Amino acid sequence: MTRYKMVLEYDGAPFVGWQRQKNGPSVQQRVEEALTGFCNAEIPVSAAGRTDAGVHALGQVIHADIEKQTSADTVRDALNYHLKPAPVSVVRVTAVDDEFHARFDAVKRHYLYRILTRRAPPALEKGRVWHVPVPLDVDAMDDAAQRVLGRHDFTTFRAAECQAKSPVKTLDAFTVSQVADEIHFAVSARSFLHTQVRSMVGTLKKVGEGKWTGHQVGKALKACNRAACGPLAPPHGLYLLKVDYEA
Amino acid sequence: MTRYKMVLEYDGAPFVGWQRQKNGPSVQQRVEEALTGFCNAEIPVSAAGRTDAGVHALGQVIHADIEKQTSADTVRDALNYHLKPAPVSVVRVTAVDDEFHARFDAVKRHYLYRILTRRAPPALEKGRVWHVPVPLDVDAMDDAAQRVLGRHDFTTFRAAECQAKSPVKTLDAFTVSQVADEIHFAVSARSFLHTQVRSMVGTLKKVGEGKWTGHQVGKALKACNRAACGPLAPPHGLYLLKVDYEA
Repeated sequence: MTRYKMVLEYDGAPFVGWQRQKNGPSVQQRVEEALTGFCNAEIPVSAAGRTDAGVHALGQVIHADIEKQTSADTVRDALNYHLKPAPVSVVRVTAVDDEFHARFDAVKRHYLYRILTRRAPPALEKGRVWHVPVPLDVDAMDDAAQRVLGRHDFTTFRAAECQAKSPVKTLDAFTVSQVADEIHFAVSARSFLHTQVRSMVGTLKKVGEGKWTGHQVGKALKACNRAACGPLAPPHGLYLLKVDYEA
Repeated sequence: MTRYKMVLEYDGAPFVGWQRQKNGPSVQQRVEEALTGFCNAEIPVSAAGRTDAGVHALGQVIHADIEKQTSADTVRDALNYHLKPAPVSVVRVTAVDDEFHARFDAVKRHYLYRILTRRAPPALEKGRVWHVPVPLDVDAMDDAAQRVLGRHDFTTFRAAECQAKSPVKTLDAFTVSQVADEIHFAVSARSFLHTQVRSMVGTLKKVGEGKWTGHQVGKALKACNRAACGPLAPPHGLYLLKVDYEA
């Protein structure tokens, strides 16, 4: 038996999210089906981030145990063969220690949120960005983002169905920057609450529109009340970019 | 009557190309239908680049004459409304001189060709890059690209059905560079022959694989013979990026 760490890329659009659910196809189900196709056995996988329906990944990390004598490159190629035509790709596979756990060993998760602010809708990036057809104040949003940095009770930015034991998390980075006609929100933390990134981006958008001040964002955070949160940003602008582990 | 210059973005996948054809939907047809929806009249459009089936555009330029009293911003918004749900977007519209011609006044056209060279297939960029699952020698390709720079008879890199009067063109720029796990070919010229960019990229790929030398590319060009060309690169890696006009 060898444990493999795998880095996945996927288009979240056709899925109910990472995790298996009764109401439709999940990325987890597709990956486990591909493993069954390759190994002729039921092999469960664990992922670093349980992305929601419609959320994309460029660097989701999972692990799985394979009995079959094989190589990391063969695992990658065989899974990609069995994953077709689903928009899921196994980018890298490495054999790891039997104790490695994709979820519990992750020390940092990096997310990217993309807003397209021009008036014209996206043609090529449709379903890949949140289209906001009005200008947003990037500096004001970046400024407000700094108010939620650090260790806080993030109840305001937490979905009702969130299963985390504690609402206290430490946000390590949150930057807002203009990239051509898009605004990119880069967020990093050891772990996040359910819909935390989309809750924070939706709230910052209010600041970008001039409807809220940075001070109000700070007050919303301190309120520790879901009702103080801005509207949730849609899932299709969000990407799980990268997951870090101890060397 | 006002002449408008418009910058378009489109996903080439569902179209037979820019130009109207009997065998399927074209971008031109969709845009002219949107103009009819907005103006209740038949309004022909002219484009700077007649992109082939499957070729994308980030900066196609067209012009059209509109009788209706309106504004450039209204033209943009109304056309985007009427274009839905086609993956075509009117990014910018400006009123121009009645003499402006999108095709004949263009002084430079810029194309980008993207190859993804990693082993794993693309998930999010499927249909947006040419997936070549083997490493390619970027320096060797960039070196070979310099041999086709300048003014030449490009018959070798010209489709049989090309309608250009002369096969002599001047290539102003042709650079090959690594961008993360992609290789980008950036090509600029006043005008191109039919399939010239895809013919040149397909030929350079031979060099990247080590099957051809830069010297052979030079010889292929001098042969002025279509049979000397490498295999055509597929359309879905190609983007019409930008078209320049005199100020």
